[in-house]
Amino acid sequence: MSAAMTAAEFSSPWTLAHRAERMNPSILREILKVTDRPGILSMAGGLPSPESFPVEAMRAACERVLRDTPREALQYAASEGFAPLREWVAAHLAAQGMAVGADQVLITTGSQQGLDLVAKVLVDPGAPVAVETPTYLGALQAFAPMEPIFASVASDADGPLPEAVAALAHDAPGTRFLYVLPNFQNPSGRLMPEARREALVAAAQRAGVPLVEDNPYGDLWFDTAPPRPLAARWPEGTIYLGSFSKVLAPGLRLGYLVAPRALYPKLLQAKQAADLHTPGFNQRVVHEVIRDGFLDTHVPKIRTMYRRQRDALCEALREHLPAGSEWQPPSGGMFCWIRLPEGCDAVALLPQAVEQGIAFVPGAAFYARQPDARTVRLSFVTLTPDEIRTAVATLGALLRRHLTEDAPTPTP
Amino acid sequence: MSAAMTAAEFSSPWTLAHRAERMNPSILREILKVTDRPGILSMAGGLPSPESFPVEAMRAACERVLRDTPREALQYAASEGFAPLREWVAAHLAAQGMAVGADQVLITTGSQQGLDLVAKVLVDPGAPVAVETPTYLGALQAFAPMEPIFASVASDADGPLPEAVAALAHDAPGTRFLYVLPNFQNPSGRLMPEARREALVAAAQRAGVPLVEDNPYGDLWFDTAPPRPLAARWPEGTIYLGSFSKVLAPGLRLGYLVAPRALYPKLLQAKQAADLHTPGFNQRVVHEVIRDGFLDTHVPKIRTMYRRQRDALCEALREHLPAGSEWQPPSGGMFCWIRLPEGCDAVALLPQAVEQGIAFVPGAAFYARQPDARTVRLSFVTLTPDEIRTAVATLGALLRRHLTEDAPTPTP
Repeated sequence: MSAAMTAAEFSSPWTLAHRAERMNPSILREILKVTDRPGILSMAGGLPSPESFPVEAMRAACERVLRDTPREALQYAASEGFAPLREWVAAHLAAQGMAVGADQVLITTGSQQGLDLVAKVLVDPGAPVAVETPTYLGALQAFAPMEPIFASVASDADGPLPEAVAALAHDAPGTRFLYVLPNFQNPSGRLMPEARREALVAAAQRAGVPLVEDNPYGDLWFDTAPPRPLAARWPEGTIYLGSFSKVLAPGLRLGYLVAPRALYPKLLQAKQAADLHTPGFNQRVVHEVIRDGFLDTHVPKIRTMYRRQRDALCEALREHLPAGSEWQPPSGGMFCWIRLPEGCDAVALLPQAVEQGIAFVPGAAFYARQPDARTVRLSFVTLTPDEIRTAVATLGALLRRHLTEDAPTPTP
Repeated sequence: MSAAMTAAEFSSPWTLAHRAERMNPSILREILKVTDRPGILSMAGGLPSPESFPVEAMRAACERVLRDTPREALQYAASEGFAPLREWVAAHLAAQGMAVGADQVLITTGSQQGLDLVAKVLVDPGAPVAVETPTYLGALQAFAPMEPIFASVASDADGPLPEAVAALAHDAPGTRFLYVLPNFQNPSGRLMPEARREALVAAAQRAGVPLVEDNPYGDLWFDTAPPRPLAARWPEGTIYLGSFSKVLAPGLRLGYLVAPRALYPKLLQAKQAADLHTPGFNQRVVHEVIRDGFLDTHVPKIRTMYRRQRDALCEALREHLPAGSEWQPPSGGMFCWIRLPEGCDAVALLPQAVEQGIAFVPGAAFYARQPDARTVRLSFVTLTPDEIRTAVATLGALLRRHLTEDAPTPTP
C-alpha cells in the first residue's frame, strides 16, 4: 500500500509519510482481543501478575509526595528525569557491575520509549538493525517506523550466535546496532550464560556493531542472579534499557536508559521533543517507594510467586506435551517457549485452542524475518498453578488430537 | 556537522541517523538555565502557576483510584487511553461545538507527544510543514527530527494571513499541514478572531493544506470564551490537540489528540510504538478529579488569578515601556508579546536584564525562519502582581538606558 494510494482512499488533504507504511496494528494486540475473553485460561498475555503490585506502598508514597512536594511533583520538570531517581538507578546498576554516572541515566516513559528514542537517533531508512531470532515484538514496532532493514541473527538456546554477529560486518555492513535481551528473553525465556556474553561482546566489538541491551526481566531470576550485563563489558558500545514495569507496576510507565556520554545529548534532545519529560509525579512516587530498599524485600516475593507458577507449568508440560515437543524450563522471567512437534502450525491451532478455553501466542509474531510456525509463547505468571495445569492439559489434548488426525492414514 | 563527522568525534562504533542533526538543545531550556536563579524575577518560563494545582483533589483521587481499581490502574492498558477519559474529552469538546466520537480521541503523554506522533505519521524528509510567524518552539522541536522544510506563514495580530495560507499551494506545494495555535498563542498571546478563523479554514481548504490545531490555553480566557475551534469547521481536515497541563497540572503529562477517523489508526500505531500507552494511573486519577464537574469551578479560579496578573502587567507596561514599543493586552493564556523599539536586540539585552535581576525570553527562539530580533515573550502567571510591577519597571529602565546610550550623539 503506497502513501499515495492511502491518501487517495482518504479522498482528503492528508498525505501519509512513507514511514507510516511500516506502522501496523500489533499482531499481539489483535491476538489478545480474541483471547482475552471471560472464561479463557490465557497464557497469551505479556502482563506481570497484578498480585505483585505494591498497592499499599504506592498509596503511602502518593500521599507523602503530595504532602511534601506537591508543587514540584505537579510542575514541568527536567527532561533528564528526577535527579534522586537517576542517582538511585546509577547505584542500582553499580551493584550489578555497571560503573555508570547518574548523568548517563535518562528516565523514559516506559522502556518502550527508550527503544523509540534509540531508533530516532540511530536508524536511517535502509540502514541495517540486527535483532535476535526470535526477538521482542515491541522492539520491532519501535524500530520499524525509522525504516531499518532488519537482520535476524541466528540464535540458539543461549542467545545470538557469536559467529552470526561477526558475520554482520560482511552480511549487513553499517549495522547500526544489535538489539539483545539477555535475561529471560521475551519471547523465548532464555538466559544468556556468561560464556556467550563474553563471546558475543567480543564478536560485536570486532564487527564494530554496538549493542542495545534491554533488561526488563533481569531481577526476576528464580535460582541465581544472571551474569553481569553486556553494558558492563562494553560500556562505550552499549545503550542499556531498564524498567520498573516488572518489579513495581507497568501502569506507571517508568523506565530508563543508560547511554555512553557521547550519545547522551542526542537521546536527551529526542526525549525533549517526544514528550518533554516523563511524568514527574510518577518519578517521585516511585522514588519514594524504592528509596529505602523496598525492592530488596518486594522482588524476592515476586520471584517466589513466579517460581511456583514456573514449576507448575514445567510439571504440566512434562506430563501433557506430546513427544517431539521441544522446550526448556525458564530460569526466570515470565515466559516459556515451546517448539511443537512437526506438523503443528501454532497460528492454525490458536482458534481451536480458544474454542477449548485456552490461549497462547503463536511464536511467528516474534520473528523479524522468516518465522518458525511451530513455536509458541506461554506466559505463566497470570494464572494460578491449578489453572496452569488445566490449561496445559487442554493444550496437550488438543495437540495429540491434531497429530493423530493429521497422521497419514495407513494405506490398506 | 555531518553524521559521519559526529561518528568520528565519538571514535566509537555508533553512527548517528541523519535526522539527529535536526535535534538540538532547546534554546529555551538553555536560556532558562541562566534565568532560573534564586532572586531573579523571571518572566521567562512557560510554566503555569503552581498556585493553580489542585493538590487536595489529586490526593483524594489517588486514594480512591488505589482503593477502588488498583490492579487496573497499575497494569498495562489500552494504547487508545482510558475509555471514560476519552468519553469525557469527547463530551467536553462537544460543548465547544466539535462533534467528535470518543473513538477519535487518543490519550497522549502530554500534547507534546501528540506533535511527535503527528510528525511521524505525516512528515517525510524534505516535505513542507507550515507554521505561524512566530510559532511554538516545542512544535518546531517535535517536527524537526522528521526533517520537514518549514514554511513560516506571514501572520498579524489575528494569526496567519489567509492570503499567505492560500499561497502555500503555489509556494510550498505538498505542504503536509499548517500547525496553528489559535487561542492565546505561545509565544504571542494572540487570539484568532471569528472572521480570521473562517477565512483561514476556507483558504486552507482551497489550498488543500490540512490543519494541526493546538489548544493548550483555550480554557484560560479572561473576558469571553474563544470562538469555535478550527476543527469544528473542518473536522476531516484537522487534527486537534488538547492538554490537561494548564487546567490541572503539567507534571501529570496528560494530553490528547482528536483525529479524523481515516487517520486515527496510523496515529494509534505510532502511539503503541512510542510508549505503549500513557500511564493508566495518571489517566484514572485525572478522570477521577474531573468526572463530576471539578473543572467548572476550578478553571474560573485560574482565570481570575491570571487575569489579575495580566492586569498588573499591562498597567506596568503602559507606565514603563519606552515609546516605540509595540504590544497588545492578552485576552487569555499566559503570555504577552512585545516588540521593542528600533535599535533593541532582545538576545543582546538578556544578559543585562539578568544582571538587573529580571528575565524574559527573546522572541527570536520562536521563528521557524527569519527571526525578529526586537521581540520578547513575557510570562505573567508565575510572579505576583507586585513582582510583575517591579520586573517591568526594571525592564523599562534598562530599555530607556539602552536607547539613550545607543542614540546617535548629536554632532556639535
